[in-house]
Amino acid sequence: MQATKTNSGNFFEDFRLGQIIRHATPRTVWPGDAALYTALYGPRFAVQSSRAFARAIGYPDAPTDDLLTFHIVFGKTVPDISLNAIANLGYAECRFLKAVYPGETLSTVSEVIGLKENSNKETGTVYVRSTGSNDRGEKVLEYVRWVMVRKRDKNAPTPDARVPKLTDRVDPATLGAAVPALETAAYDLDLAGSRHRWGDYAVGEKIDHVDGMTVEESEHQLATRLYQNTAKVHFNQHTEAKGRFGKRIVYGGVVISLARALSFNGLGNAFHVAAINGGRHVAPCFAGDTVYAWSEVLEKAEIAGRRDIGALRVRLVAVKNRDCAGHPFKTETGDYAEGVILDLDVWLVLPR
Amino acid sequence: MQATKTNSGNFFEDFRLGQIIRHATPRTVWPGDAALYTALYGPRFAVQSSRAFARAIGYPDAPTDDLLTFHIVFGKTVPDISLNAIANLGYAECRFLKAVYPGETLSTVSEVIGLKENSNKETGTVYVRSTGSNDRGEKVLEYVRWVMVRKRDKNAPTPDARVPKLTDRVDPATLGAAVPALETAAYDLDLAGSRHRWGDYAVGEKIDHVDGMTVEESEHQLATRLYQNTAKVHFNQHTEAKGRFGKRIVYGGVVISLARALSFNGLGNAFHVAAINGGRHVAPCFAGDTVYAWSEVLEKAEIAGRRDIGALRVRLVAVKNRDCAGHPFKTETGDYAEGVILDLDVWLVLPR
Amino acid sequence: MQATKTNSGNFFEDFRLGQIIRHATPRTVWPGDAALYTALYGPRFAVQSSRAFARAIGYPDAPTDDLLTFHIVFGKTVPDISLNAIANLGYAECRFLKAVYPGETLSTVSEVIGLKENSNKETGTVYVRSTGSNDRGEKVLEYVRWVMVRKRDKNAPTPDARVPKLTDRVDPATLGAAVPALETAAYDLDLAGSRHRWGDYAVGEKIDHVDGMTVEESEHQLATRLYQNTAKVHFNQHTEAKGRFGKRIVYGGVVISLARALSFNGLGNAFHVAAINGGRHVAPCFAGDTVYAWSEVLEKAEIAGRRDIGALRVRLVAVKNRDCAGHPFKTETGDYAEGVILDLDVWLVLPR
Repeated sequence: MQATKTNSGNFFEDFRLGQIIRHATPRTVWPGDAALYTALYGPRFAVQSSRAFARAIGYPDAPTDDLLTFHIVFGKTVPDISLNAIANLGYAECRFLKAVYPGETLSTVSEVIGLKENSNKETGTVYVRSTGSNDRGEKVLEYVRWVMVRKRDKNAPTPDARVPKLTDRVDPATLGAAVPALETAAYDLDLAGSRHRWGDYAVGEKIDHVDGMTVEESEHQLATRLYQNTAKVHFNQHTEAKGRFGKRIVYGGVVISLARALSFNGLGNAFHVAAINGGRHVAPCFAGDTVYAWSEVLEKAEIAGRRDIGALRVRLVAVKNRDCAGHPFKTETGDYAEGVILDLDVWLVLPR
Repeated sequence: MQATKTNSGNFFEDFRLGQIIRHATPRTVWPGDAALYTALYGPRFAVQSSRAFARAIGYPDAPTDDLLTFHIVFGKTVPDISLNAIANLGYAECRFLKAVYPGETLSTVSEVIGLKENSNKETGTVYVRSTGSNDRGEKVLEYVRWVMVRKRDKNAPTPDARVPKLTDRVDPATLGAAVPALETAAYDLDLAGSRHRWGDYAVGEKIDHVDGMTVEESEHQLATRLYQNTAKVHFNQHTEAKGRFGKRIVYGGVVISLARALSFNGLGNAFHVAAINGGRHVAPCFAGDTVYAWSEVLEKAEIAGRRDIGALRVRLVAVKNRDCAGHPFKTETGDYAEGVILDLDVWLVLPR
Repeated sequence: MQATKTNSGNFFEDFRLGQIIRHATPRTVWPGDAALYTALYGPRFAVQSSRAFARAIGYPDAPTDDLLTFHIVFGKTVPDISLNAIANLGYAECRFLKAVYPGETLSTVSEVIGLKENSNKETGTVYVRSTGSNDRGEKVLEYVRWVMVRKRDKNAPTPDARVPKLTDRVDPATLGAAVPALETAAYDLDLAGSRHRWGDYAVGEKIDHVDGMTVEESEHQLATRLYQNTAKVHFNQHTEAKGRFGKRIVYGGVVISLARALSFNGLGNAFHVAAINGGRHVAPCFAGDTVYAWSEVLEKAEIAGRRDIGALRVRLVAVKNRDCAGHPFKTETGDYAEGVILDLDVWLVLPR
């Protein structure tokens, strides 16, 4: 009877194209989340840090950090989508659609949009589009991710392969939905901590964010539990000691949040993550590692109908245990350089 | 003069039968407590996790996690009751009487209901009934615990022994006071994360909660300070290094909360701890230990006058550094099995 | 172009006498800060711990812990004042001017009030008076600190030396601005956890606060990020491993908060830090160290116009890895004794 009560997760053959999964557990964005998120990563973007700053420029309140929203929405999908995953293969088409405020409750629904069994018949790739909504039913976030999931039974029949077409980058015309019309005159550059507006950045520009942050075991565990992400590899030293690395793996979202917080030093006015075009966790991060970050401006885009804000497409790279002088990325052979752990392609919004 | 300013705690001969102790420090349940509690243990019960879910079924707001209430109420008793305790011997008759919401201030009063000197005249057992109340004076929680406390002076006279009669289990007819009349039709099983209602569990059923969680030093310290529990053994490595174990001991309440959070996987709809019938910290837990849990359904009970909810009496067992396949509990000799650290007997409430 | 985007901090020759610096980033005191501050240090002062207690005696709500306010206001100055500092030389004239409540946004402005190049021409001392204000523009805190800052260029010309006159101690007549008129009859000594009012303390009295608290790496990192203090030495093991100590240094403010929390045991009714007359971080604190504290009453003062409260000038001493029996302070040669890490001179307010 025990097996019927506990969740052993879905295996590859359990997924159906077009399947809709309503995930547990809805979670209110608590008034305490902002303080805890600040303690975990140290972000300093003024819009999220200060209610007074946010209100002065046109927000009704300080919005929740975009990545906190992402992690909460994402965390809910783990028990249904990736409990039996071997690898988190990628993200795409992630758009932040609406600002989230404390007191709102977030829930997540996923649709299976692609399935492809691997030739070894032991695993397959599952593509889902996950949508996070607030308790008024408004979409706040959507994204696609694909993971490699084990089969329970090698001989189980599986459907014809279907791989969804995904865009390389989110269309910048669709960005900015989560940003109210801003009083840019009230955007105080001294308080924001950077003099550089959208117009001051150039395509091709690379920025070493200079600072490094060492990750402790309890910090990543606190963060990952805060998101109610239950992936076992982050929490259980008893089993991980016998695992591939001999230790717990830091949730990739912790690395993303750390890199984003570090990027304040150089991108201080990039107050909003509007989209994640794609992302790859190149190598694992462990407690004791020191994370650095650097960015490259890939593209600049105006946002249709908006004179107050503009978008920068940025490659945000996180590197461990080496600084980012020289902007470590790939070697001559095309492999990622030693120490690179994250290669994230995002649209950031700045005041014009 | 120093000795008169600092609290050196009560010794066995300082307690009087019938004595009433109003404990310091009242503590408001902060709006930030829910986030921090989530980060510390990762609970996923929908009622406490989501204001929207709680409201949909009839709560005015998401209630505070029952065990957080317990730890706060308990923590206040430490400086007066157990600063000079050698052992925390047991709990009984713990009832959660009223839901607690953020903004309410909790305070604790204890009555000494039993005293029994040990034959060595160096220690004695103190029984107290402690009651936690909100700032409207309403009782939210009461429980009995008994501890072995040192005597200051072996020759100090002590009163006649008086051992209170305690019930083996809280009468199920008295459960449910902290749960409003529920709109069970609005209780969404998908969002709650489990399909199993009260009726789906059977007496004798054992559930391995599968997951394990490794405890870090700073996690248990953060938790225990959050409850303003000042017991020295949890915080001071300088003295504990010379102590019995050579290291700090994790507060037993941390183990209870971890086991409870892990029990979500198998008891996802057991959203309310209505009573603790008894409990024993079988062995200490230390930083670095990985905690697992399993449950056994001991009894099922209807709750008088309630068609919306039912009660399960459950033995919740926490085990360290071994998984719970086989439900490790006791050996043939009746001793607790290797690794068992907690044996807790609780009444849980589920929707019918 | 990179160098123009990231903040490399000010060097000695960049400061000008009379210069006004508006610091980034304004930060709202989140509803979650109280819970997190409690978890980090375990303070038990009733006024800050309980909204009900605070309201009963005349506060509109539980005020934010004074030291949390200090750390937030201080943290903002780091990127502009002390990013290139070699040493934090001292504090003076620190006054807490107004109670701070959750929801208020704090920002900091500093004025350069003194500059003095060192004879080696490689460094100089910068004196700033920093003022923290809420979003109504009311001053909540001001203090002077002086730091030794590197020069970028040894040959850069520097202004004539100007060393400000600083008082040895804040005039007690100016204390108490942050405390409303108290209903002292409603100040419940049982709930507050101490029977000792202002009148019960005597000049010359020394109090060993008894308890010790071991600091973990993640705890001080969480705390320091909570204050958005970006000083590199607290966070980056990769660089600190090659540094002077081979490890990260605990932010001095963490030691101050720990000592303050420990001082509850002996100074339980000293609910308000009204001023910091001076302070010195005598030796560094590292993760793994156990912090103890003791206090000496240096002076007692009535507060002009106030019959409800009185002030104690207290030397608060933090010591590591040894207890405070004997009140370790200075040796016969006048040097600080082994283990002393903090020598802080404060005005505390107690009910009369």
